[in-house]
Amino acid sequence: MTRMTILTEAELRRIVLLNREAVACIEDAFHALATKSVAMPPILRLDIPEHRGEVDVKTAYVPGLDGFAIKISPGFFDNPKIGLPSTNGMMVLLSTKTGLVQALLLDNGYLTDIRTAAAGAVAAKHLSRKDASVAVIFGAGMQAKLQLKALALVRPIREARLWARDAAKAEAAANALAEELGFPVKAATDPRVAVDAADIIVTTTPSEKPILMAEWLRPGQHVTAMGSDAEHKNEIDPQAIARATYVADSLRQTRRLGELHHAIAAGLTAPDAEFAELGQVIAGQRIGRTHADEITIADLTGTGIQDTAIATLAFARAGAANAGTTFES
Amino acid sequence: MTRMTILTEAELRRIVLLNREAVACIEDAFHALATKSVAMPPILRLDIPEHRGEVDVKTAYVPGLDGFAIKISPGFFDNPKIGLPSTNGMMVLLSTKTGLVQALLLDNGYLTDIRTAAAGAVAAKHLSRKDASVAVIFGAGMQAKLQLKALALVRPIREARLWARDAAKAEAAANALAEELGFPVKAATDPRVAVDAADIIVTTTPSEKPILMAEWLRPGQHVTAMGSDAEHKNEIDPQAIARATYVADSLRQTRRLGELHHAIAAGLTAPDAEFAELGQVIAGQRIGRTHADEITIADLTGTGIQDTAIATLAFARAGAANAGTTFES
Repeated sequence: MTRMTILTEAELRRIVLLNREAVACIEDAFHALATKSVAMPPILRLDIPEHRGEVDVKTAYVPGLDGFAIKISPGFFDNPKIGLPSTNGMMVLLSTKTGLVQALLLDNGYLTDIRTAAAGAVAAKHLSRKDASVAVIFGAGMQAKLQLKALALVRPIREARLWARDAAKAEAAANALAEELGFPVKAATDPRVAVDAADIIVTTTPSEKPILMAEWLRPGQHVTAMGSDAEHKNEIDPQAIARATYVADSLRQTRRLGELHHAIAAGLTAPDAEFAELGQVIAGQRIGRTHADEITIADLTGTGIQDTAIATLAFARAGAANAGTTFES
Repeated sequence: MTRMTILTEAELRRIVLLNREAVACIEDAFHALATKSVAMPPILRLDIPEHRGEVDVKTAYVPGLDGFAIKISPGFFDNPKIGLPSTNGMMVLLSTKTGLVQALLLDNGYLTDIRTAAAGAVAAKHLSRKDASVAVIFGAGMQAKLQLKALALVRPIREARLWARDAAKAEAAANALAEELGFPVKAATDPRVAVDAADIIVTTTPSEKPILMAEWLRPGQHVTAMGSDAEHKNEIDPQAIARATYVADSLRQTRRLGELHHAIAAGLTAPDAEFAELGQVIAGQRIGRTHADEITIADLTGTGIQDTAIATLAFARAGAANAGTTFES
């Protein structure tokens, strides 16, 4: 018999918040990726084109942690037509000593949202200028909102602009964020103008063509691209990758899935060119930003180690809060 | 909110049995693999050498089925020292239309045992002589027992021998099987002598060196090798692969993980040599056994389509039996 804890989305929302603790948890995870013998196999991906569906399965083992997560992330893009969210999913936390299931985290994608936003904060903390105070977010979905909240945890953000194809959605998201964060957040009508005034730019869209142009960028800015987690997605003009100081979450992944992949495909970067990874910058093994006038780009495709880290945090907090249902099988 | 059914191992053992229905379910799955546009990505594998642990994640999408399974199979080989089984795991069944979780099958590996044994029956049904009546099983574990039971569902088995390194374990397994199956099952002391008298040989061990030699085989025999699901495992003398009529469960997998992989490594088979797959034989696209004196070998590494098939069967039977617990998150 295996005894496991089942945690629902509502329980997880109560015990895991997008706060400094979550950011530190993801920062530690990237640090471990650079300094420990982490095992992080390539993502398992299944496509179901008949229903515009895709599923990613990610995992990572971190020596020293009691558990490792296997995360199932479905994205079914016709779901909104029938009133369901596009993305969903759950995580299974297994014991690193016995392989037994410790917990089922039925988060419907919530923990992915948190660990993805937290990675944006970690990238900005280590790559953007310390005085960065104006942010521009591309996109108006869940990650657009969470990325701005995450930035505000690590930088003295005092103003933000939000641009999205759907102007009404951008407006609504900007208003909600302004109220929640207590600083001005407005919808941008011209993304170029918005970018020109920004210290940090975060792209959070599923775009398949660049929406952030290289010539828009100016010295000192930091860009985090977190929308590209598949070969066909592309938010950043490949010319920008070639010109900026580029940092990957996982170089093995970004060469294949991220913005880097498009710079390689365009012949602007060699397929085997070496770049720093975020964890190496955190651990001091590689240098990120060297001076205030540099342009930095963080290419975040999402890694299994973030899932293992956030699942471990959730399980620990559930234990402390006595949350969840015990189930035996 | 997602509404899902949770099924425990005890419930699954009640509703899914190793019987003709399970064999037909797995036969249909292999048929679909050859005839439908099935998506079956490469296995995700994570190794945790510190604890002699490994985890495989398998999946497959079959057009026409309502759901697809993602199976998590851990094997932690120090577990028996602390009184736990080496293998465990669970399956998650997701909707092919929405990606929502339909069911959590907390089977602790039971459904894998059944679908693996059923594949042995399917291989014997399509490749062994119809009059095959004497079986030899290598190994004395769970699969050794189940493979013999599975053979008895599709061939008129009247006698069996069981060989294992641990003679006492072989003896105990043979006695238990004789009682259950109602025909003589004895432990073999000399595997070569046992093989000489056999019509069907099934290898079910985690051996890393061949235990079935090519020169032991004689015309008319059928061999199913199901122990090799990783690069380092090898039960069959590579010479035997080169000489027999070889059939893979999935050629892409057996070239990398199965017995075929060792024949390729030994230079006995070209890396890109084409062989029939079991599903193609079932569908009549390729010929398996052409005459009574042929030697046939089925190389079974275990496929995600078997998991999707058995999980679909389990979910349907749970619905019919009103089994399981409904959970919302």
